[in-house]
Amino acid sequence: MIYFDNSATTMPDQSVLDTFIKASTRFFGNPSSLHFPGMEAERFLERARNQIAVLCQVSADEIIFTSGGTESNNLAVKGAARFYQNRGRHIVTTAIEHPSVFEACRDLEEEGFRVTYVQPGQNGVVKTADIERVMTDDTILVTVMHVNNETGAIQPVEEIGRMLKSYPQTRFHVDAVQGFGKVPLNIKKANIDLLSVSGHKLHGLKGTGFLVKRSRAELVPLLSGGGQEKGIRSGTEHTAAAAALAKTVRLTLKEEVSSIQKMTNWLRQTLELRPEFVIHTPDGQAAPHILNVSVNGVKGEVLVHALEKKGFIVSTTSACSSKQTKPSRTLMAMGVHQDLASSAIRISLSSRNTMEEAEQFIETLDTIVPQLAKKRNERK
Amino acid sequence: MIYFDNSATTMPDQSVLDTFIKASTRFFGNPSSLHFPGMEAERFLERARNQIAVLCQVSADEIIFTSGGTESNNLAVKGAARFYQNRGRHIVTTAIEHPSVFEACRDLEEEGFRVTYVQPGQNGVVKTADIERVMTDDTILVTVMHVNNETGAIQPVEEIGRMLKSYPQTRFHVDAVQGFGKVPLNIKKANIDLLSVSGHKLHGLKGTGFLVKRSRAELVPLLSGGGQEKGIRSGTEHTAAAAALAKTVRLTLKEEVSSIQKMTNWLRQTLELRPEFVIHTPDGQAAPHILNVSVNGVKGEVLVHALEKKGFIVSTTSACSSKQTKPSRTLMAMGVHQDLASSAIRISLSSRNTMEEAEQFIETLDTIVPQLAKKRNERK
Ligand SMILES: Cc1ncc(COP(=O)(O)O)c(C=O)c1O
Ligand SMILES: Cc1ncc(COP(=O)(O)O)c(C=O)c1O
Repeated sequence: MIYFDNSATTMPDQSVLDTFIKASTRFFGNPSSLHFPGMEAERFLERARNQIAVLCQVSADEIIFTSGGTESNNLAVKGAARFYQNRGRHIVTTAIEHPSVFEACRDLEEEGFRVTYVQPGQNGVVKTADIERVMTDDTILVTVMHVNNETGAIQPVEEIGRMLKSYPQTRFHVDAVQGFGKVPLNIKKANIDLLSVSGHKLHGLKGTGFLVKRSRAELVPLLSGGGQEKGIRSGTEHTAAAAALAKTVRLTLKEEVSSIQKMTNWLRQTLELRPEFVIHTPDGQAAPHILNVSVNGVKGEVLVHALEKKGFIVSTTSACSSKQTKPSRTLMAMGVHQDLASSAIRISLSSRNTMEEAEQFIETLDTIVPQLAKKRNERK
Repeated sequence: MIYFDNSATTMPDQSVLDTFIKASTRFFGNPSSLHFPGMEAERFLERARNQIAVLCQVSADEIIFTSGGTESNNLAVKGAARFYQNRGRHIVTTAIEHPSVFEACRDLEEEGFRVTYVQPGQNGVVKTADIERVMTDDTILVTVMHVNNETGAIQPVEEIGRMLKSYPQTRFHVDAVQGFGKVPLNIKKANIDLLSVSGHKLHGLKGTGFLVKRSRAELVPLLSGGGQEKGIRSGTEHTAAAAALAKTVRLTLKEEVSSIQKMTNWLRQTLELRPEFVIHTPDGQAAPHILNVSVNGVKGEVLVHALEKKGFIVSTTSACSSKQTKPSRTLMAMGVHQDLASSAIRISLSSRNTMEEAEQFIETLDTIVPQLAKKRNERK
């Protein structure tokens, strides 16, 4: 099996699992307990928090551990909206956010917030000017993803952050689940208040994630209770998950991103020579690991299944949307025609993939696609 | 180290860890993906869900996986209140709930709900009649814990459930985090709509838990997004956590609870002979694993630290409150005098503890307590 669906999830690294196991047994105490096993667990938890903070260049008390990207996004978006609702009730986001931001915004509309969904350009990139144009005195939150999970398009979050310096009443959240470790981003320079990261997209474990919460950003918690994580996220702290996540972040930031870029560049150049293929991932403005392409007239599902039979795992769209039959919300927002959007497949690589795998993939495409195109023409 | 703080958290079972590791690697796919690794992960996830459902005697689509007890409680309490808010805005709970229910209710008061906190009797047990007395036409939710985490007192949830049959507009949530596997409870017979369980209290892993959500109970989700867990709990499904939790539940329900009961009975009988000790856990109405006792005039913290020096781990109160210096909310609600409440320690056992450990514990108490009492008397 050659796995090219690393944007959906990744195989956990053995060393991350080892850390998890070790910490689960050695530091099983409840970090809130005052006795020795509790204090040892707390020390280990805080060590993990510190390591992540240093790597993210923020302070340790700005790292809130969560159960993953979806929780980080919901906590940031709903938490900030609810906290600042007396200051204003307007939220700005984009039409291409992950469902965990998009649906959180929909929920907030039910609660009486106004949300503006800014459209991207044809390249899948949102313009800072288009964000600025819809800002009002009432705007308490801007939430924009760093890297789109379907096309890989990089959003200008540093530029948006700079623009938002003129709006001190507005908090800025960035969903960095796909961008983290792939595209450099300086949280402070980009004036980001809240930033979401998920472990399982980075060869870490599912159920692990964190939210960077800069000190000026206040949140109403989703989970109340014992007051853990400075009252922002109650629940017995999960020392082993935190340690595994620290390991994940360390490994991720050491990774050779250029090797992934080399593979996607080669795939892009090779597919560009083939007239059947339409590439949706913008050239030069995308993360190194995602390439979204359509084969004209061949349904994405059909291509995915044909590839799977040959041992290649790719996906039609994001995993959480893949059981719906609707074409990708992101591609539609880019103005891609519905037929072409239904033909899209997402190839997403990791540093564990190799150039040989990429070459085998193209060979396989070159045998499969003409067969599928032939079937398509026969049907016509 | 002899660990008697199993109500705070437990050492994970090696076989649970093994299941987690195996599933993390073998079934790492995203269960929402349509390809083979995704479908395999989904099958394994659903197998875990089925196993838990069978053991709980509910149907598989009534099991919602969460990140633990705090999330299950917040989801149930806030989720039900928000869903049924147009039907009524009154909630009934008790004064002795865990903070994850208590604070969730406080939050709901901020949102405009009315909450009645029913007081327990001197034995720490709430009376069904006292719950019924405060029911109104407006009551949409009753939330009562099965076993109190500080005293072990069993609440009459079956009786409350029967009473609630006359209030079909009211949903019934039970926090079973301390009771699960320790005190038998038939969810259907007890007319329970929502029931919370946490893995790490049962020699399972932190970050694992579930909510039983009977089909007639509707909830507004806390986490929106990809629509996983039937739209009730979005976020990439954590197959390995689910499998580990199924293993945990299987092991728990196979456990010999009588061996724990024997140890606490013996501890109780032994301590009852010593006039310095006051026992707060009601006799015959408590879970088998918890014994809450005070030594008159000796601060709980002091006793806990003295015991720790001799290698025995107990706690003053619940872990999440242990960093606060306030005396236990539960003991205060029972009418225990503040001084005596500040002297309380909680001894909580598991089936991994032995009678020899219990005997050594008493021996140690018998040397420590007279010394501490002497110091106390010198200070007077
Ligand atoms: C951009 C983006 N945000 C958020 C998420 C949600 O993260 P998680 O799967 O950890 O809940 C994902 C992946 O599903 C994603 O790709
Ligand atoms: C009765 C009770 N409910 C809920 C919880 C919270 O569970 P968790 O630690 O899994 O968040 C606990 C333990 O902390 C508890 O004892």
